[in-house]
Amino acid sequence: MRVEEFLKQKGIEVGDYVRIIKVEDGEKVEYEGIVMPPYELSEGDTVVIKLDNGYNIGIAIEKIQEINVIEKAKAKPEVHFKAELEPRKELPTITILGTGGTIASRIDYETGAVYPAFTAEELAKAVPEIFEIANIKPKLLFNIFSEDMKPKHWIEIAHETAKALNSGNEGVVIAHGTDTMGYTAAALSFMLRNLTKPVVLVGAQRSSDRPSSDAAMNLICATRMAVSDAAEVMVVMHGETSDTYCLAHRGTKVRKMHTSRRDAFRSINDIPIAKIWSDGKIEFLRDDYRKRSEGEVWVDDKLEEKVALVKVYPGMSAELIDFLVDKGYKGIVIEGTGLGHTPSDLIPSIKRAVDEGVAVCMTSQCLYGRVNLNVYATGRKLLKAGVIPCEDMLPETAYVKLMWVLGHTNDLREAKKMMLTNYAGEITPYTKPNTFLI
Amino acid sequence: MRVEEFLKQKGIEVGDYVRIIKVEDGEKVEYEGIVMPPYELSEGDTVVIKLDNGYNIGIAIEKIQEINVIEKAKAKPEVHFKAELEPRKELPTITILGTGGTIASRIDYETGAVYPAFTAEELAKAVPEIFEIANIKPKLLFNIFSEDMKPKHWIEIAHETAKALNSGNEGVVIAHGTDTMGYTAAALSFMLRNLTKPVVLVGAQRSSDRPSSDAAMNLICATRMAVSDAAEVMVVMHGETSDTYCLAHRGTKVRKMHTSRRDAFRSINDIPIAKIWSDGKIEFLRDDYRKRSEGEVWVDDKLEEKVALVKVYPGMSAELIDFLVDKGYKGIVIEGTGLGHTPSDLIPSIKRAVDEGVAVCMTSQCLYGRVNLNVYATGRKLLKAGVIPCEDMLPETAYVKLMWVLGHTNDLREAKKMMLTNYAGEITPYTKPNTFLI
Repeated sequence: MRVEEFLKQKGIEVGDYVRIIKVEDGEKVEYEGIVMPPYELSEGDTVVIKLDNGYNIGIAIEKIQEINVIEKAKAKPEVHFKAELEPRKELPTITILGTGGTIASRIDYETGAVYPAFTAEELAKAVPEIFEIANIKPKLLFNIFSEDMKPKHWIEIAHETAKALNSGNEGVVIAHGTDTMGYTAAALSFMLRNLTKPVVLVGAQRSSDRPSSDAAMNLICATRMAVSDAAEVMVVMHGETSDTYCLAHRGTKVRKMHTSRRDAFRSINDIPIAKIWSDGKIEFLRDDYRKRSEGEVWVDDKLEEKVALVKVYPGMSAELIDFLVDKGYKGIVIEGTGLGHTPSDLIPSIKRAVDEGVAVCMTSQCLYGRVNLNVYATGRKLLKAGVIPCEDMLPETAYVKLMWVLGHTNDLREAKKMMLTNYAGEITPYTKPNTFLI
Repeated sequence: MRVEEFLKQKGIEVGDYVRIIKVEDGEKVEYEGIVMPPYELSEGDTVVIKLDNGYNIGIAIEKIQEINVIEKAKAKPEVHFKAELEPRKELPTITILGTGGTIASRIDYETGAVYPAFTAEELAKAVPEIFEIANIKPKLLFNIFSEDMKPKHWIEIAHETAKALNSGNEGVVIAHGTDTMGYTAAALSFMLRNLTKPVVLVGAQRSSDRPSSDAAMNLICATRMAVSDAAEVMVVMHGETSDTYCLAHRGTKVRKMHTSRRDAFRSINDIPIAKIWSDGKIEFLRDDYRKRSEGEVWVDDKLEEKVALVKVYPGMSAELIDFLVDKGYKGIVIEGTGLGHTPSDLIPSIKRAVDEGVAVCMTSQCLYGRVNLNVYATGRKLLKAGVIPCEDMLPETAYVKLMWVLGHTNDLREAKKMMLTNYAGEITPYTKPNTFLI
């Protein structure tokens, strides 16, 4: 029996506080907690409740002997924000673009209710603090999991962002799923030209129906960065597992480094732009960030989509490279080993790719550090084959950048020049200390 | 003119201390230093010398006005180790297998001389300390860059290791290039069954002709671990950039996380087995490692080579999955986003792969954390398509393991069962705190 039906039969709603008596192996166990939305954690036959200690537990329907409501779900708090939603002259105005993901879909973690998308009122209910920082103009662009984000979505986000920035907003916050947030941040970093105001991507690692959700604090910190003087594309997420501070990472240097921790996002080979403390203070960690200024932002959205990102490994067959060339790919970003190597027997296929006009770029699967094709013989052979060494660029950033570069030129020399030009902080000119595993 | 000829003409040998007068744009500059082996850093027309400050500089031959020997290379120290090379009864005996890489080829960093492979005498000259720890039996297996390591090499190393362990050696040290050392460590972890003695992979991040080489200390620490009571496959490398200690990492949980730092190797989602302090003390960081025992080690070397490791990314085309299935691949390890997702439009191709008998396994490109396909809709669809979620296994480890698993069975249910069986510490049953970015 599906859990929705089961709950309906019993007259139980999501958010109700219930007592469940479960029977297993002849033994009775009793649980009390709030009924969670069924479709996040269960496979359809499990009732999930949030226990008083904050943990969720799933109980198979067939093992439930008894389920009783102790307290009905609290009525959702009335929306008392009409006044605040009127623009307050003393506050800057920002736009929040919704694209989907955990943060946009489950913002109300008090009641456990799940929203497929947010409106201004829903935001207010969940995180009223942001209305003390700025006047908020929310706009839902789409509602997709970030693993389904495609170049066409990047382009749409870029245009909406520029439009907002060019029409009186002081900044833009983009609520986004975390899975591919780094890729989107990189894409916006290259596409938004003459960026004069902050663009902040924000997400949540823990869905809002979990007591440990990071959605609210991340959104508050993102809003603060959006009215700051940092005119960069940034990712704002928790800096530690506790709620001490968030970090604002440069969009081209950030990567999701953990599947589930709240502080999963990390700057790689670079230091973050700022700490946003939970008391609201912004502490800039560097002074070389791009400053807020005047001027129209424009979108350079030419992307070549026939680009692939390929991680190499021992035993890999060259046929995978050949296939991409045969299929008409215009660019290949290789995630090589160490300083930027591949098995030697891939080199003829790589050379053939370059000879046929495919831009082949080298990054490292180490992630930290910098490729250097001059040190070892394999690297020099790759250089000779025409591979473009991408300095300390992240593989994901190099992939997005190559799409953007090849949207502008088919000439390999020009493409190489562009790949090695620092457009948005994607290349650090020298390796900074204290950026490894931090 | 090639640099070898040039040096020969001038009567200069590698290791000579020289003074060079260079002329550029009419200006004379003078350098003094030790002549380095030409084939590491120059393209054939550059003389590389190590300056007194330890840095290397390359000077183009055509700009060299004058080059003079100030001091001839020190004669290589005589081998006075005959006595030591006679087995000392009070010491355990280990075998050191050479496979290539920086550590094996350039062990003599005092003179700058480069060895393509090492013998006992060469080791002794460079790192005599190891002969105080054990009687050393060196054996050169092959001499290749580790990016060229293939499954057949893993198999050869496994057999040589088992042979050594079963014939009186207390442990085996394997000198290996660092690029793919993690993959080889994983392969040996699965192939060496009933492991009763230590197997230690060791490499060097900095070539021995650099003053900052880590080769000597790594080799000393590796030798110490090889006579310890930890009967595991381990990687021993620097734990910090300074020479304070090395770390012994479990072979299935270790990854090269930096292109060039001496402390590049890190345990992911797990704590290392031990610290080896520079004073020789071994500090075990956990007590659940496999202990030295009696019994024959055997090699289970059945590997299915038609396995691919595929990192997914936004905009990726499903044709890459289709291609692998069409080409007869038997297994695909996906490096998914976040908790283990792919773009939704890959799922039909993934389902087709499974339906045609291909084992498709899910890992995360976050590297840290654990895949969980139960949380979000995309994950559940992947589960339903038959994807095997690989817990907290590294993508590289899952790739090697899947080759090994498919060497034993073609049955997908059996393959799933084996992938989720913990053979060599590749799965940690629960996520340990203090293992993120450490």
